[in-house]
Amino acid sequence: MSTRIAPLSGFPEWLPAERVVEQAFLDIIRETFELHGFVSVETRAVEPVSRLLGKGGDADKEIYGVHRLAGDAESGADPDGEAEQSDPDKALGLHFDLTVPFARYVLENAGKLTFPFRRYQIQKVWRGERPQEGRFREFTQCDIDIVDAGSLAAHYEAEMPLVIADVFSKLPIGDYRIQVNNRKIPEGFYLGLGLTDVVGTLRIVDKLDKIGPEGVTELLASAGATDEQIGQCLALAEISSTDTTFADRVRALGVSHPTLDEGLAELTAVMEAAMAQRPGVLVADLRVARGLDYYTGTVYETQLVGHESYGSVCSGGRYDALASDGRTTYPGVGISIGLSRLLARLVSTGAVRASRPTPTCVVVALGVEEDRARATAVAAELRGRGIATEIAPSAAKFGKQIRFADRRGIPFVWFLGAEGASDSVKDIRSGEQVDAESATWTPPAEDLRPVLERVED
Amino acid sequence: MSTRIAPLSGFPEWLPAERVVEQAFLDIIRETFELHGFVSVETRAVEPVSRLLGKGGDADKEIYGVHRLAGDAESGADPDGEAEQSDPDKALGLHFDLTVPFARYVLENAGKLTFPFRRYQIQKVWRGERPQEGRFREFTQCDIDIVDAGSLAAHYEAEMPLVIADVFSKLPIGDYRIQVNNRKIPEGFYLGLGLTDVVGTLRIVDKLDKIGPEGVTELLASAGATDEQIGQCLALAEISSTDTTFADRVRALGVSHPTLDEGLAELTAVMEAAMAQRPGVLVADLRVARGLDYYTGTVYETQLVGHESYGSVCSGGRYDALASDGRTTYPGVGISIGLSRLLARLVSTGAVRASRPTPTCVVVALGVEEDRARATAVAAELRGRGIATEIAPSAAKFGKQIRFADRRGIPFVWFLGAEGASDSVKDIRSGEQVDAESATWTPPAEDLRPVLERVED
Repeated sequence: MSTRIAPLSGFPEWLPAERVVEQAFLDIIRETFELHGFVSVETRAVEPVSRLLGKGGDADKEIYGVHRLAGDAESGADPDGEAEQSDPDKALGLHFDLTVPFARYVLENAGKLTFPFRRYQIQKVWRGERPQEGRFREFTQCDIDIVDAGSLAAHYEAEMPLVIADVFSKLPIGDYRIQVNNRKIPEGFYLGLGLTDVVGTLRIVDKLDKIGPEGVTELLASAGATDEQIGQCLALAEISSTDTTFADRVRALGVSHPTLDEGLAELTAVMEAAMAQRPGVLVADLRVARGLDYYTGTVYETQLVGHESYGSVCSGGRYDALASDGRTTYPGVGISIGLSRLLARLVSTGAVRASRPTPTCVVVALGVEEDRARATAVAAELRGRGIATEIAPSAAKFGKQIRFADRRGIPFVWFLGAEGASDSVKDIRSGEQVDAESATWTPPAEDLRPVLERVED
Repeated sequence: MSTRIAPLSGFPEWLPAERVVEQAFLDIIRETFELHGFVSVETRAVEPVSRLLGKGGDADKEIYGVHRLAGDAESGADPDGEAEQSDPDKALGLHFDLTVPFARYVLENAGKLTFPFRRYQIQKVWRGERPQEGRFREFTQCDIDIVDAGSLAAHYEAEMPLVIADVFSKLPIGDYRIQVNNRKIPEGFYLGLGLTDVVGTLRIVDKLDKIGPEGVTELLASAGATDEQIGQCLALAEISSTDTTFADRVRALGVSHPTLDEGLAELTAVMEAAMAQRPGVLVADLRVARGLDYYTGTVYETQLVGHESYGSVCSGGRYDALASDGRTTYPGVGISIGLSRLLARLVSTGAVRASRPTPTCVVVALGVEEDRARATAVAAELRGRGIATEIAPSAAKFGKQIRFADRRGIPFVWFLGAEGASDSVKDIRSGEQVDAESATWTPPAEDLRPVLERVED
């Protein structure tokens, strides 16, 4: 085997201590999704390339294709006839999000699901884009979506970010802000202004954070917009509020269009529900657009306060036409926590850590190898009562046993008693050692499993 | 979007009810691994093809390559210079097991890990082989491994299957049998017989279950073995015992070689530990070989009793040379539950099911849409006390609310009281309806979450 091992750029892997943090996040996310009645779905990693293309905006060129290395010689004998790479209906690619595969899953299984269908999905996705801070080629997404057959009630658009707010209230991520917009607002506004290339205009205005008002002005002008139209587009993008006052400010700009009215009404309803349940968490921000092409109404993005330039850590929106079998359409709304992105920032800045890098609570020390059977019995009894326990790898002196635990962050060392004497257990942090029986001893609740700790700056 | 949606052969996906079973299995597996002090590791899905090739026996031609669809035009601008498909050091492939990536992870992070290093890893793997019953192209493996730097204590070879036995004792999988062998036994035996092509002989004898003694005889004969050598090979493969008597039966065949003695001593030690801790669970079975090339000592396979022809659902072994950086070698031993394979059999035969196909315990009924805010408050209170709750999608009459819950397997429907009256909750299975307050009402413990049920034949 080659001796040179280098990490692959864009394919992050955690060390055990970081993975413990990720697992704690995953557990809280999953538990909260389930408390809100979402059922778990996992989809295969691959989709036909034809199903991936044209759904992801700029993502098309980021798709990873998948093919058997054995190549065509073998596949001639393959009755499933997969993977002529040149045929996008047969060629396979790794999914770049979880919404497109979920839409396909709904269509494939519509007869076996009950609607409205609430599902969560926590999986890796792949995008062949250029790696940079917080942007990976392989990363974990945590999605919730609700889809219905025919039509989807508007109240779900308010529910999505409130489920996320419930999740985030349990995670040590600091202050955050969920920004919400409705695509019908810029669409109606641009149409009302006489700008008919809605998608083109949206894409330019979406670059506001990156290239500033001057850059946007320049691009809109070369696309043929007048100074007045440009001024109005920028004025719209400047509007935000944590209540429903955004609507009056939009109307004050004097543009009118039925689609604009629809968008304002829908966004107002979302903000009203949010203000009733979690005031201050949602911000109506008319700059938010989302890059993916399939959104048709409400859209969400989420910023960590103080890390705004890092980009969104939780995004989504409503899509009305993603899943359709020609007879029935399944409109949906969803939101996705970019877990790898979120964790990369929290872990790299040292803001969050785990109380220890291992599940092990107790290591049973071995003075002599002959005691291994006794140690195994003690360990089995502790495990049976839910206490994670391992046994020293080899017999060793007292000091070496303590160092073994200390190097791994294991809080307790168990010592087998000499004949007739009681066992004892030592908290290696305090040095306190007490007599103990494996049938009854219990660690303090906060030591039973590793827990998350927020490190304040 | 195309209207024709067909499943992809070999890429199974679960419906929600089946996924609930899978999650329950995953939870028990993970919890038990952690109780035994294994830390979680996840590795990226891709490895350089050069690292995958030559490790998997027949698996080489089953590797899935991965490449950016955008192709070389883009990658010229890519500073990471990935994926010239023709260069196996740069080309990427999906991992086909979790042992090869873990060995690479150990080498890459050796300076940051503590040894012996106990890790578990639960992830999907991909093999482009021909799909058939219980054999998939994408499937989930649940691995534990212990690796050490320089040398690895033999007691870990006994520990691995006993951890699995602890897992299986908590899963409703029926009777099973973990078969264990040591590759040094056939190796030493063949050498003692004068058969120098050990690997070739092993591969032929490994087909015994498939082609029978006549087939093996024929193949060994055409490889040049004498009738006596063939008879001895078959006699060795016939030996099995649930205790340590296998060793005497091997010695009675009259073949001797130092490697054979080593293997017999190691397998005897494994069986002695198993007999002390879980008598009857392990079987020394000298027919077991394992296809993968990297095993060097103890090997494991596991059969579901009554489903022997289905093949192994949990396999592994000791590998001494998989991870080496030229200076240090990291020998390891591991075992892997083939979860997809195991579940496919249990679910398809109807042997295991979940008590319900959703996490939701309570649905809050809505008589009129104006009550949604009140319903949301009730749901929030129940969720805050760990009771998974959803709210009716729309206002509807009593009967429709009951049917909504019934179709989803949700056991309880919550009714908001009219002004001044108490709320009430109905168990739709028994029909019993009682007054209830969201701050105090608790469902029976067995209804809180979906649980596994074993269905006896």
